[in-house]
Amino acid sequence: MGLTESVLIERFFRACGAQRSDVTLGIGDDAALLRFGAGNDLVAKTDTLVEGVHFPHGSPPASIGHRALAVNLSDIAAMGARPAWALLALTLPRAEEGWLAEFAAGLGALAREHRVALVGGDTTHGPLTITVQLLGSVPAGAALRRGGAHAGDVLFVSGNPGDAAAGLALEQGRLTAPDGARDYLRERFLLPTPRVALGERLRTFASACIDVSDGLLGDAGKLAKASALGAELTFEELPVSEALCATLGEEGARLLALSGGDDYELCFAVPAAQVARLHAELPPERWNYQRIGALSETRGERVLRGGTVMEFSHSGYQHFA
Amino acid sequence: MGLTESVLIERFFRACGAQRSDVTLGIGDDAALLRFGAGNDLVAKTDTLVEGVHFPHGSPPASIGHRALAVNLSDIAAMGARPAWALLALTLPRAEEGWLAEFAAGLGALAREHRVALVGGDTTHGPLTITVQLLGSVPAGAALRRGGAHAGDVLFVSGNPGDAAAGLALEQGRLTAPDGARDYLRERFLLPTPRVALGERLRTFASACIDVSDGLLGDAGKLAKASALGAELTFEELPVSEALCATLGEEGARLLALSGGDDYELCFAVPAAQVARLHAELPPERWNYQRIGALSETRGERVLRGGTVMEFSHSGYQHFA
Repeated sequence: MGLTESVLIERFFRACGAQRSDVTLGIGDDAALLRFGAGNDLVAKTDTLVEGVHFPHGSPPASIGHRALAVNLSDIAAMGARPAWALLALTLPRAEEGWLAEFAAGLGALAREHRVALVGGDTTHGPLTITVQLLGSVPAGAALRRGGAHAGDVLFVSGNPGDAAAGLALEQGRLTAPDGARDYLRERFLLPTPRVALGERLRTFASACIDVSDGLLGDAGKLAKASALGAELTFEELPVSEALCATLGEEGARLLALSGGDDYELCFAVPAAQVARLHAELPPERWNYQRIGALSETRGERVLRGGTVMEFSHSGYQHFA
Repeated sequence: MGLTESVLIERFFRACGAQRSDVTLGIGDDAALLRFGAGNDLVAKTDTLVEGVHFPHGSPPASIGHRALAVNLSDIAAMGARPAWALLALTLPRAEEGWLAEFAAGLGALAREHRVALVGGDTTHGPLTITVQLLGSVPAGAALRRGGAHAGDVLFVSGNPGDAAAGLALEQGRLTAPDGARDYLRERFLLPTPRVALGERLRTFASACIDVSDGLLGDAGKLAKASALGAELTFEELPVSEALCATLGEEGARLLALSGGDDYELCFAVPAAQVARLHAELPPERWNYQRIGALSETRGERVLRGGTVMEFSHSGYQHFA
């Protein structure tokens, strides 16, 4: 590499994340030391982004840095936990200063927004691959899990699923969109919004929660399965954005909301008796979530449209394939 | 991939590591939940291995799995900490069952040996890259650091530095070795021994400690620099193995002990007044470490031979280049 590892770390990553008083020892020794409070469970997650697999070749470096942290923040959010510390394993074909500066800016801005300190990592030579490990905490025993919901619990999703999948298709030239919609949808892919504050607030309401990253219908099904239940979504309730409707029509938008990936929204279940309190304390229009269906005793995931179960062809799940 | 991610995880990694009662929630949810005791600092480390960079193409999968964990265990050991939980980010060009079974066996055996639970991870498609994140704990404030040593402190190293570098050169066909030495040296590269128990025991003796992974002389220099001191090694004291001497001669063996990489031994400083107690409580022949020099006020790293400072050409640091 053109830059030595130590110069690269000093220049781009030493001051990249948030400053936290619980970081006893950060970047620069054999490992990081983190002071951890009593009465909490530690939450740990790692996710990898590979160039050409999880983002197109030549993606904006700020987006890559943002997404590498965002995908992990979203999982921590789905546990109802508060993120605190990150480690960054960065494999680079070459050390380009401009690229690194933008990457670090993208990662650092999101880290500081969520008070996440970058406390260590490893830089290696090889095909562009970014693995972030994110650590956080949650009051002992209070974490949200995929399992634990009951039949009749109401299902919600945050944000507008499908936007990111359309944004990726726009990035890759597999889709066209009207002028007003294009930039919005691209940004939903390039700079997703992990719902960290919502996840923390949901601890006192939700019976189960999952990060939506592989498509809403499948991920709602995973939540239901972990609770030994089925998921029943209502097609007409799917919260699709105006931009997505303008691009694909309302029908196409709802289909993509069910199957698209890379949303990094939260899908969660709330006991029916708690929904009024949820809506009062976390107003949906302010916290940006919407009812999409309910959990039922009948296993599997289904979508109801006009009261009847929709049939999907295989291609219904794989848009732009 | 031929195997789905969930099948791959169930088959090869669910039961791969140790079983621990402090794992509240392991593989399978959005993140892992770990119960963490009061009065401890959390220790966190990540290291990446890239095929063709950190190990030769076609290396035995059990060795790759072992090394991916060992390089992180060695850093945790250098902090005087006890490892507990690992996450595995595994990027694979294709999911071959035989390869995965051997990889998991190599990683799992070392994990169970050190009571490390595999609590999560991510499998992705791409060029073979393995990133392990290792978490452990150390009594609050008791961790060993690179800094903190004083002039006059005695420097020690565990094991036989240089063996692993010779083993790699044998693997790559850049070196030949006598029959009795070849397998021993190859194994020192393929299956290094992280000094976890030694690191923990050193907490009450060592003033500073570092993991030797980039060459003993340079890493001893990093320890000295972090302590605002210099390192003075004695050429005649370098603990070279019989196998390395049989392969390179005693002179060549000592030179490689100074510069070779991939040792994963510990280099540590002990105040001169504590050395007798160290030797009494941790007998060197049983714990496998040896005195190699001392720290001095004069900055930089030096090697003394017959009382005079050795001069190295640049090539002296880069064997088989």
